[in-house]
Amino acid sequence: MSAVSPSDNSHGSEAWSASWTHFRIDRCSPAYCRVTFDHPPINTITATTVAELAELVDLIEQDPDLNVVVFDSANPDFYLAHYDVENDPGRTAALGAGPTGLPAWVDVLVRLARAPVVSIASIRGRARGAGSEFILACDLRFASRENTVLGQFEVGVGVVPGGGPMARLARLVGRGRALEILLVADDVDGPRAERYGYVNRLIADGELDDEVEEIASRVARFDHDALARTKSYVDLVTLPADSELGRPLGDFRELFGRRAQQAQWARLQELGLNTDSDLERSLGRRIVESIPDA
Amino acid sequence: MSAVSPSDNSHGSEAWSASWTHFRIDRCSPAYCRVTFDHPPINTITATTVAELAELVDLIEQDPDLNVVVFDSANPDFYLAHYDVENDPGRTAALGAGPTGLPAWVDVLVRLARAPVVSIASIRGRARGAGSEFILACDLRFASRENTVLGQFEVGVGVVPGGGPMARLARLVGRGRALEILLVADDVDGPRAERYGYVNRLIADGELDDEVEEIASRVARFDHDALARTKSYVDLVTLPADSELGRPLGDFRELFGRRAQQAQWARLQELGLNTDSDLERSLGRRIVESIPDA
Amino acid sequence: MSAVSPSDNSHGSEAWSASWTHFRIDRCSPAYCRVTFDHPPINTITATTVAELAELVDLIEQDPDLNVVVFDSANPDFYLAHYDVENDPGRTAALGAGPTGLPAWVDVLVRLARAPVVSIASIRGRARGAGSEFILACDLRFASRENTVLGQFEVGVGVVPGGGPMARLARLVGRGRALEILLVADDVDGPRAERYGYVNRLIADGELDDEVEEIASRVARFDHDALARTKSYVDLVTLPADSELGRPLGDFRELFGRRAQQAQWARLQELGLNTDSDLERSLGRRIVESIPDA
Repeated sequence: MSAVSPSDNSHGSEAWSASWTHFRIDRCSPAYCRVTFDHPPINTITATTVAELAELVDLIEQDPDLNVVVFDSANPDFYLAHYDVENDPGRTAALGAGPTGLPAWVDVLVRLARAPVVSIASIRGRARGAGSEFILACDLRFASRENTVLGQFEVGVGVVPGGGPMARLARLVGRGRALEILLVADDVDGPRAERYGYVNRLIADGELDDEVEEIASRVARFDHDALARTKSYVDLVTLPADSELGRPLGDFRELFGRRAQQAQWARLQELGLNTDSDLERSLGRRIVESIPDA
Repeated sequence: MSAVSPSDNSHGSEAWSASWTHFRIDRCSPAYCRVTFDHPPINTITATTVAELAELVDLIEQDPDLNVVVFDSANPDFYLAHYDVENDPGRTAALGAGPTGLPAWVDVLVRLARAPVVSIASIRGRARGAGSEFILACDLRFASRENTVLGQFEVGVGVVPGGGPMARLARLVGRGRALEILLVADDVDGPRAERYGYVNRLIADGELDDEVEEIASRVARFDHDALARTKSYVDLVTLPADSELGRPLGDFRELFGRRAQQAQWARLQELGLNTDSDLERSLGRRIVESIPDA
Repeated sequence: MSAVSPSDNSHGSEAWSASWTHFRIDRCSPAYCRVTFDHPPINTITATTVAELAELVDLIEQDPDLNVVVFDSANPDFYLAHYDVENDPGRTAALGAGPTGLPAWVDVLVRLARAPVVSIASIRGRARGAGSEFILACDLRFASRENTVLGQFEVGVGVVPGGGPMARLARLVGRGRALEILLVADDVDGPRAERYGYVNRLIADGELDDEVEEIASRVARFDHDALARTKSYVDLVTLPADSELGRPLGDFRELFGRRAQQAQWARLQELGLNTDSDLERSLGRRIVESIPDA
């Protein structure tokens, strides 16, 4: 089965065809939508990405025809690099709280996980930090066998991850492997990600797009109520309570505000952070270069 | 170690040697019982199967000598196909509630999971829908490496699975893989079932019977109290509350009663449902043939 | 990266360099400590081991500089064999309750799991019974690919495991695999342990020491607060309540006190228990030799 060609968005409402800046939307059919991250050079997540994703999740929640949303990336090396404050932390703080009452980024992830549609992360390239938090909030994760790098490097720069990976990874891969991912804070390649349950399964890179397309097209034909109700019963068992997700972001802000962490972040920027650099390609291994010698 | 030869049931009480119609019982020893599903042509589960299993679980619960029950199949291609209403939904509804107060099928599964014996599903062939729900209620699942097909196809016919797989799979294989099994609703082969934790592990088809026999014979020799108490502590952590299991069956009934779903079911029957047909052999893939074009 | 050479403990306080009898301590740096079990002939755990571990955990809890503790074994065939009452159950009972109010052994495990440091079990050889309980209380478990044997054989001698493996395994590997490990009570080799999630992952035996050293040295450089707080959020989701851990030890004592179990234990001692014997090397398989014929 070949990938569908880009549609003319003719199925989407006006809102869906708004001009997005950090991703493209292809409303393949009323039941099926594809979102392609496209924010050069490495798909960092910024305040703009969060605001656009919040708007997108609003649309997803309110669309009675939608069964499935696939999230993929226009950049084969970077799915979603990580969060970039763009030298202006104020823009992120200014996003405020979302409809759940949680801060914007956490709110987007919570609402996506609970939405009555099937969200699929089709992963090729790197997804670290907030990028990893995003895929953990999707329902299904399919990843390129040859070209996947996941990780939560936050502890390596002296902060607590703020977007919920303790809550989600602990439930998904169990205590030991969650602690390894979070506390050793190194890169996880595809085969280890599959063995740990960090992703559902690997698909050969050359077949990833077609197989995800086939899955999405299948789910698009199913009855919406059957999908939504069945998902809701799994939600009851597997989703963290909102109360579990608020505090870590406070820790992140407190710890990141320290002088030493600001210095570490500045050093990483000198080394190539937020650009298509060797540092970004090997961030898990090289993160220690930002730590001053004891 | 070779499989034991069929016993004369001399160890069983009168009740155990009652004449069963959808399975055979071999009481290998006071501590060990084997139940072989044998309901041609494809081991569908019907109101009769449920009633007989309810009676069997009564016996299991009350037998102070019993340590282990193995469930296998006389049909190498079908372990337990799925539920068959046999064109008479009234018979299933008439089963009423079991001792737990839950509807008969859910009651059987809940009581089997809590019984103070080790239940082992020795899986060869297909176990879908209610057949998959049955193995999920067993304590241990060993499966043929070459010849295992599992799945919950219910969402593909527009209904919510009614026998608890949302509650059990979510705890067994984690959110992402549970959602894939339930919402993509496709067949899962042996290797994927093992990787996901849907079964304990695979055993080469030619060794499955002997290895399960060896495990059961071993457990049969253990102290009953040690087994029962140890299991009860795992139950505390891993079993869903009864309250989690009642509502999905209501959804199943409501959604299945809709005209479109009745039409889908009728179409599947035309295509070979409930018979040893290509449809039944490839039900996961072919289920979409019952969905009318949008 | 090569293993560090034994330090002179110059970084440790007086307390750390106390003379330990069942393990050696190497305080590689203020942030990193290595503990090597060395209690010939097979690293059994006795009342002395428990008392020393309790003292060690006190030190770990109170050390603001410590980030990571690695536990390995001086004996390549036995990591920690299992508990040995040394013909004097009174010594174990006399240990009383620890700071958590739980009995000494359970208390040590609970406090280690909650300590604000990363504990790593670097496993080579056998870890059964209480030895398995110990590694389950560590945060990360890395194991020799070629030379790992894990198991909870307790049910095979007619008792309930007392140190919490029902609570920990059920959360780590899921219901089915936890019940298999606990109720079939047989040995689990490295590859199966990795597949089940009983360990984080396997490492080739020849690379185990260097890779664990590399991980520990990395974690030693991280910010202590970031590690401790991130771990605490995983603890919230994954650690059993204390109340779950007290009762099974009572069952253990009650069941072990029975005449039949005392006789089984005596028979095992005749067969070579607590010595570097074939029985100890194949304890999972041979445990049934201690069960009288029915």
